[in-house]
Amino acid sequence: MILTVTLNTALDITYRVRALRPHSTHRVSEVTERPGGKGLNVARVLAALGHEVTVTGFTGGATGRVVQDQLTATPGVMDALLPVTGPTRRTIAVVDEQTGDTTQLNEPGPTITSAEWSGFQTAYEDLLTSASAVALCGSLPPGVPVGAYAGLVRTARAAGVPVLLDTAGEALRRGVAARPDIIKPNADELAELTGSHEPLRATEDARRRGARAVIASLGREGLHAATPEGRWRATPPGHVHGNPTGAGDSAVAGLLSGLVEDLPWPDRLTRAVALSAATVRSATAGDFDREAYEKLLAQVSVTAA
Amino acid sequence: MILTVTLNTALDITYRVRALRPHSTHRVSEVTERPGGKGLNVARVLAALGHEVTVTGFTGGATGRVVQDQLTATPGVMDALLPVTGPTRRTIAVVDEQTGDTTQLNEPGPTITSAEWSGFQTAYEDLLTSASAVALCGSLPPGVPVGAYAGLVRTARAAGVPVLLDTAGEALRRGVAARPDIIKPNADELAELTGSHEPLRATEDARRRGARAVIASLGREGLHAATPEGRWRATPPGHVHGNPTGAGDSAVAGLLSGLVEDLPWPDRLTRAVALSAATVRSATAGDFDREAYEKLLAQVSVTAA
Repeated sequence: MILTVTLNTALDITYRVRALRPHSTHRVSEVTERPGGKGLNVARVLAALGHEVTVTGFTGGATGRVVQDQLTATPGVMDALLPVTGPTRRTIAVVDEQTGDTTQLNEPGPTITSAEWSGFQTAYEDLLTSASAVALCGSLPPGVPVGAYAGLVRTARAAGVPVLLDTAGEALRRGVAARPDIIKPNADELAELTGSHEPLRATEDARRRGARAVIASLGREGLHAATPEGRWRATPPGHVHGNPTGAGDSAVAGLLSGLVEDLPWPDRLTRAVALSAATVRSATAGDFDREAYEKLLAQVSVTAA
Repeated sequence: MILTVTLNTALDITYRVRALRPHSTHRVSEVTERPGGKGLNVARVLAALGHEVTVTGFTGGATGRVVQDQLTATPGVMDALLPVTGPTRRTIAVVDEQTGDTTQLNEPGPTITSAEWSGFQTAYEDLLTSASAVALCGSLPPGVPVGAYAGLVRTARAAGVPVLLDTAGEALRRGVAARPDIIKPNADELAELTGSHEPLRATEDARRRGARAVIASLGREGLHAATPEGRWRATPPGHVHGNPTGAGDSAVAGLLSGLVEDLPWPDRLTRAVALSAATVRSATAGDFDREAYEKLLAQVSVTAA
């Protein structure tokens, strides 16, 4: 199975309101809820592609139970989240129906105790014994040390399990130094890590810092890949309209599924870009449009860079 | 016991953010949650005053379970909420730390089926047999007919149980016609009902429409009462600073407790104004400051109007 780690799981709630006006009262016309946190999004896409996936990380309180109930209802996804005392966070996206813009309110997440964190590390090591690949995804909740991902990368490497890291800031900087197989920063995350906004220079710099392969997601311009096997640029056909929520997570799912199927890099990148664009096109934020995905597979262009 | 009815129970969530800016992402620095809906607030204050209270209305889904867990932890409050299929609503108050202003997002609440509504009416009639008074509080969830409160007022009167109605709009208009013992509109609700912003004229008009006693809550100016026993004005000492959330619900609790203790109107009004002001002064929105309450009891002025 593929293992995805989401230390700061969430319940993603979307509210639709007519027009958001600070300091007034709004009637929410529509409420939708889904399990969130990057690793859970990645798992959902992998499961839809036919892979067996196990999700781990933390879950707590009433919100954690809702997340777990919804995960249990997702075919192909195994729940190996660890219970903690603090409550799983909610994120609220308030969609303004007049402008289409979104205002985001993110709870901080539960404070993880040192006992909970060490319990997780043990459970993670156990799960790695049956994993073909692992993805470490998203932000760290309060209480988890900033070097957490570096440790989890090392454990995966010691277990011989390929590891993809998708995070930001200091957690990314430290994680990269532990030599993950793949990182998938977006343009801002890559610039923060390397100090460069130029993809060629920045991806090579990130490789020198320790990442074996660097797959930079550049929004509508697709992916820029720097790997030991070569450099590529993978781009979707024309501009893709829609909601970019979850597009990066779908790209991670594409890269992981190509990795465990041992596809060459250009095929992995094609899959990642097609899934990403099919996610932007989907009517539901974070889901991918399967028909669009199948079509896009033939339309993505991959060129040596 | 005193019975309070909250057809549209809620989980009231408060978020603190540094500054609310539409169309950007916010980290919530503090999350607090408490059971909400006017009738639950009234019950909490009555219990704190030493009364036995039973709460009824609807509860559903994961949010409903959180509301019930927190109610169960409140001494003196008996939970007689009826389970429904739809989820209990959340309300989110986003407090801007820079300005102190609040932006409110209210979910609509579960859609109540006609079977659920008729189940409630039966349960309500049973609960009335052991009630010394009943308060009907707040908005109606989707699916409940707009004449709902009128029916519940009639059932209480048939059972010989004094009934207080605290709602707004068409539900109030129809409820008043069913001749409740007390209504407690605020200035806006009273003006919407009667077309008049002048308390003397408006309260008398509301009595002509069917309410036996009309207690108008006029914010910092206190209460204006029009009853068969006389007319009074009850005012707090000077301007009370703080958060007015729940002040109206505390006034309802004061009126009800005075009713079941058979106090004369001036004493009921004194209690209602003191509780209301002590709620504004409390550090926690919706709670009352007991020490302030005891002091205020001696400071409220009641004059014939």
